[in-house]
Amino acid sequence: MKNRLYFVSNHPKAQAHAFQAIENEQDKIGYYTLPDQDITPILEYADKIPQSVESIVIIGIGGSSLGAKAIYEFVKPVNDLKRTLYLFESTDPIDINTTLKQIDLDTTHFIVISKSGTTVETFAIYKYVYSLLPKISAYTFITDQGSPLDKYAQEVNANVLYVPQNVGGRFSVLSSVGLLPLVLCGIDVTSLLEGAKRIKESFFEQGYMQEPLLKKAVFYAKNHARYNINCIFAYSESLKYFCEWYVQLWGESLGKHQRHSAFHVGLTPIGLIGPKDQHSFLQLLTDGTRDKSITFIKIENFEEGMTIPDISLPHLESLDILNSISFDTLINMQCDSVIESLDHEGDIPIDSIMLPKVDAYTIGSLIYYYELLTSLVAELMDVNAYDQPGVENGKVILKKKLQKTKR
Amino acid sequence: MKNRLYFVSNHPKAQAHAFQAIENEQDKIGYYTLPDQDITPILEYADKIPQSVESIVIIGIGGSSLGAKAIYEFVKPVNDLKRTLYLFESTDPIDINTTLKQIDLDTTHFIVISKSGTTVETFAIYKYVYSLLPKISAYTFITDQGSPLDKYAQEVNANVLYVPQNVGGRFSVLSSVGLLPLVLCGIDVTSLLEGAKRIKESFFEQGYMQEPLLKKAVFYAKNHARYNINCIFAYSESLKYFCEWYVQLWGESLGKHQRHSAFHVGLTPIGLIGPKDQHSFLQLLTDGTRDKSITFIKIENFEEGMTIPDISLPHLESLDILNSISFDTLINMQCDSVIESLDHEGDIPIDSIMLPKVDAYTIGSLIYYYELLTSLVAELMDVNAYDQPGVENGKVILKKKLQKTKR
Repeated sequence: MKNRLYFVSNHPKAQAHAFQAIENEQDKIGYYTLPDQDITPILEYADKIPQSVESIVIIGIGGSSLGAKAIYEFVKPVNDLKRTLYLFESTDPIDINTTLKQIDLDTTHFIVISKSGTTVETFAIYKYVYSLLPKISAYTFITDQGSPLDKYAQEVNANVLYVPQNVGGRFSVLSSVGLLPLVLCGIDVTSLLEGAKRIKESFFEQGYMQEPLLKKAVFYAKNHARYNINCIFAYSESLKYFCEWYVQLWGESLGKHQRHSAFHVGLTPIGLIGPKDQHSFLQLLTDGTRDKSITFIKIENFEEGMTIPDISLPHLESLDILNSISFDTLINMQCDSVIESLDHEGDIPIDSIMLPKVDAYTIGSLIYYYELLTSLVAELMDVNAYDQPGVENGKVILKKKLQKTKR
Repeated sequence: MKNRLYFVSNHPKAQAHAFQAIENEQDKIGYYTLPDQDITPILEYADKIPQSVESIVIIGIGGSSLGAKAIYEFVKPVNDLKRTLYLFESTDPIDINTTLKQIDLDTTHFIVISKSGTTVETFAIYKYVYSLLPKISAYTFITDQGSPLDKYAQEVNANVLYVPQNVGGRFSVLSSVGLLPLVLCGIDVTSLLEGAKRIKESFFEQGYMQEPLLKKAVFYAKNHARYNINCIFAYSESLKYFCEWYVQLWGESLGKHQRHSAFHVGLTPIGLIGPKDQHSFLQLLTDGTRDKSITFIKIENFEEGMTIPDISLPHLESLDILNSISFDTLINMQCDSVIESLDHEGDIPIDSIMLPKVDAYTIGSLIYYYELLTSLVAELMDVNAYDQPGVENGKVILKKKLQKTKR
């Protein structure tokens, strides 16, 4: 994985400050150590799930589902996976029904994930599913040790795994939360963690990723008022759900009150997929307000070996320039053309990330890169990356409304 | 469909100006008349496609695919459709391969859609597919009359339908572009157009939709610098692809140079799905910078009749408040709770749209509502809603790069 910045960011003091700050928080914040964890217990646990299980279903929402989904959807198209992953992540009854129709309860294992152990959506769905399949061995629970869900699981003799200490939901993909469902589907989580570890070492041990990460973080933070929107423009359909994971990580970590002021601050994440969104969002990037930074993501080698045939169509001879071009070349050329077309006025901060190929190692790298970037920007914006106080009020109001229905 | 604004917008002159402007452009801009069109030719054409065809595949990108996809994905979960719709809308070779594996070429009809008749992505894919299935009767082409694609189709005796005059790609969903694939899948396009017509009449004939549309448009335009981001927060998984359609419509229509200034202007669209994005984006809406307006969309009746069972789980008794609540009630209560939680400081412009149910009529209404809103806001922002000059430069650069490979 390579990262090239097309803008200038030269603030050595701010860079040093940000680096120091996240180096210091490594013993307090759990996600930093996940690439170095011993995954033997997770692998051993996964081995106990019967071979007859064909479908893995996550019942979870937000940080409990987005990470596993991002990785699964990235590697699925190029792998013959052992099992199929489904997700219940909405209380939309049509969605629940549609997913239920796709699975066979007798050959499904459910992973119920709730860090707090009291997530409303998760338990609404769990109760519904449990009423259809009241067999506790068909469920694994993942939660914080000591949570109400942990106590429930103990009480009913169910299997329970824990979210490691001090790992927040949106930073939990490389813990049991993401790893267990992925292992059960047959995804190479060892490579996944190696990819993450490579970025970690390269950042903390002054490797090749330190400079772009620090320069980018400082630029984003210093220019947060002018460039308040940060787009990922990924030239790969497989990165669609990675973009959703990024949106949560970025939006929920950086949209905050500042620690030492009364200000609302935040950076707004947007995920785009190329070349599709050249025909949708690009016009706004090109001619719209200059309020967006863009990170282009390319795949160096799709490894599909598909080439546009050498066919000439009458009246469409102008398109013969496409003939005998591989799709790999075409899609990356499309990306380069858009970068060039945007870069000429210099007022849109652009960078590009080149991923070598579509595999678990690569997505592990990309995930850890974005986690580090998020932590750095949060520090520089004087916000706590790891809490989410703003969502509590809605939960309280919902509880009151639900209680009213009981009277 | 009902629309309620939670913010004050009182600018009768600007409202009258915007109304007049779009009333005047009705004879120049084609999309306005689409709800009133005679669809007999499309229905008759669809009848000629063999009954043995099981899959409909759109080869198209942007305005050629997003509309049909939005409608199909909205109604599919609650309908037994006649045929399955697939889309080729990317040059990503992994994506092309994955889709190819899902269809049987012998029972597939391809609809190749390109308004200009020279879209690079569409022809790269068409050439590839045609090399696998060189049977011209398996294809229908939809393009502008007289385009290079039209000439090609005539030359090879292929079936061709036209995009009506003066209908832009992103406003073309209610023309043959969207209607043909939808009819072939068995979707009730008559209801779809009736839904659109209802909104049209209600707007132009001083019905119930005129006031909210005008007030909302004026507020968005007047406050474009402060609230430069416009979120849809739809409490229905079925509206996921409607959000993608909205993103193109809004971003590509409003991200422009002003007609009479040197300014870059634009409003940035974001599509969110509830309750999922309560666990992702909501923190940013609540505590982040006050730069976003939000339109909540609810479904009044999901018609699934699913209720959370009356099960009490040990240690999780606090969640018994969910028991015996229907999922319809829960998801809408979640939406209302979030609206209440955001509204209390009054500095986030919120409105809500209530859709009666999940059907073609409803999505037709919603589409036309957003088309009218886009036209109004564009007029008030002094931009041309119907062109996209900013994407040309990238195309020119791509052509040069492709030509270089030929030397």
